[in-house]
Amino acid sequence: MFESTDKKSTPLSSLGEFGLIEHISKKVIIRNPSTVKGIGDDAAILDFEDKYTVISSDMLVEGIHFDLSYMPLKHLGYKSVIVNISDIYAMNATPTQIIVSMSLSNRFSLESVEEIFEGINLACEVYRVDLVGGDTTSSTSGLTLSITSVGKVDKADVVERSGAKPNDLIVVSGNLGAAYLGLQILEREKIIFQENPSIQPELEGYEYIIERQLKPEAKRDIFKLLKELNIKPTSMIDISDGLSSEIIHLCRQSNVGCHLFENKIPIDTAVSFTCEELNMNSTTVALNGGEDYELLFTVPMECYDKIKVCDELSIIGHITEEKEMKLLTLSDSIVDLTAQGWNALLKRENK
Amino acid sequence: MFESTDKKSTPLSSLGEFGLIEHISKKVIIRNPSTVKGIGDDAAILDFEDKYTVISSDMLVEGIHFDLSYMPLKHLGYKSVIVNISDIYAMNATPTQIIVSMSLSNRFSLESVEEIFEGINLACEVYRVDLVGGDTTSSTSGLTLSITSVGKVDKADVVERSGAKPNDLIVVSGNLGAAYLGLQILEREKIIFQENPSIQPELEGYEYIIERQLKPEAKRDIFKLLKELNIKPTSMIDISDGLSSEIIHLCRQSNVGCHLFENKIPIDTAVSFTCEELNMNSTTVALNGGEDYELLFTVPMECYDKIKVCDELSIIGHITEEKEMKLLTLSDSIVDLTAQGWNALLKRENK
Repeated sequence: MFESTDKKSTPLSSLGEFGLIEHISKKVIIRNPSTVKGIGDDAAILDFEDKYTVISSDMLVEGIHFDLSYMPLKHLGYKSVIVNISDIYAMNATPTQIIVSMSLSNRFSLESVEEIFEGINLACEVYRVDLVGGDTTSSTSGLTLSITSVGKVDKADVVERSGAKPNDLIVVSGNLGAAYLGLQILEREKIIFQENPSIQPELEGYEYIIERQLKPEAKRDIFKLLKELNIKPTSMIDISDGLSSEIIHLCRQSNVGCHLFENKIPIDTAVSFTCEELNMNSTTVALNGGEDYELLFTVPMECYDKIKVCDELSIIGHITEEKEMKLLTLSDSIVDLTAQGWNALLKRENK
Repeated sequence: MFESTDKKSTPLSSLGEFGLIEHISKKVIIRNPSTVKGIGDDAAILDFEDKYTVISSDMLVEGIHFDLSYMPLKHLGYKSVIVNISDIYAMNATPTQIIVSMSLSNRFSLESVEEIFEGINLACEVYRVDLVGGDTTSSTSGLTLSITSVGKVDKADVVERSGAKPNDLIVVSGNLGAAYLGLQILEREKIIFQENPSIQPELEGYEYIIERQLKPEAKRDIFKLLKELNIKPTSMIDISDGLSSEIIHLCRQSNVGCHLFENKIPIDTAVSFTCEELNMNSTTVALNGGEDYELLFTVPMECYDKIKVCDELSIIGHITEEKEMKLLTLSDSIVDLTAQGWNALLKRENK
């Protein structure tokens, strides 16, 4: 980290596009019967039989979504897949295929591309997803990754954002705010390093929040848990832009409102400690931080007992008929929720 | 062209990502029954019932694939869809949905994005394709468009690259080389304009080749014609990188070779004239030019009579058992075909 290493560097132009595709394809393993044909034709061929196909896309741009001075390329590859398949789980669907397109400037070598694909292939292995196609091209500056993920779901099982009903419980998985704080620490250490390259970054004690930033996971366990509990959420969304922004999406699309309880928002102790150190409010961080990739969903009130006993799930409020989104604070005052979440159309620095 | 205009300019940051998505969504019309749900959730929901889903992705990068000094934004939007759905037709499939991701630097306004989407929506209308999702984000420099296209095909109808058999006829639609020459003329006029901005570009007489470069079309008509003729090609590919490169792909994946005849390669008179003017060889241009988006396919020899009478189709050679790719030239010599096609990993200027 924060260091340039003397690794082997093969210019991409020495392979050409087809050579690069062939090179990448060699390490691709197909795991899903729905993949009829992967890389190597004008298009991939998929077969979902009687199921719905779900499909989603995300673009990650260097200097906007990631900073290679502290984001290792392998982690970037891994994270870019996670960010995408998280959307598939949020439809209550199983991710099955991804398509990866990337543009790279000539500062990237074959070895850099290999590192990115190491991360992509690892995520494919862990989540049993098939890499079935994409595009690789040059750019005049920087690295852009655009991934499309495809999944399947039984028609009766699909969960949209729009199904939340009054009195439904609002549930969130895991805990919130860690990825955002991890980013703050990495940015802080980067500035210190830039000012004095002899000082090595101080990352001890921040492992958890930094891992949440650099190597997030998609919530497959929650997807499985809900199946085991025989619970089909009435609505669901993944938290990429912060709890506040996501609950507002969910309420607006369901034409309802909500009451959230500040004291119920799950916050890890590592987040509390770091917030104290950085003089930040942990609720603000949880509401607006983003990049958690936890699942936010609503369930009928009857599910209370089933949810209550799950350590991985927190009931943080309920849906209201009145179309207002409110937070009951620790000091018993009621405030409006606002969407101040991550806005990818503003630069990270302007946030 | 080659001019800056004083149009209204609304900064994208004034809308934010969600505002922009809402704005774009308003003009989106859903036309396909396979689109269960389009923009507005974590993922789009598609239903292909008993058909195969085919899926393909392409990335277009400013400064590599297009130059906004002569490519109007609306045309860019249109072309970016065409480039993509061309791959779907090349599987003998019908395009049904696209997903559009783009990153833009702050030099692009809301009005620029609207122009791009005008072109995208027009292509969607013409080709009856649904825009069902995507991602919009900022970039530190330039514009990148990444489009994923989805299509459907009856399982028995899918045509891959790998099915060509010895003695099959090699057929190409339309004519070749025009898009590449259009680019040469646009680049020439750009240089003249840069050297002396008072000189207006001389584009008269070049309308056809410039249109092939700026506003290509996907070969839906050929796809329909083949159905009418009751011909299922044994293999098919779209010509994006030049005839030579594509026939090599097709032969390698089919484990066969080919004989092409120079005198059979379809070249428009506008291409011949411009080649003469630019002192270029029209066969070289047709073999290596790229961006034609014509369909190249093989059919059993029995189809000769059916194909022969179609003005839109040219029989340019045949498949051989011997795995060599040869061209019989006008002077009756035999030369090896080589893939010198468009290489997106080299910069356009280095080509």
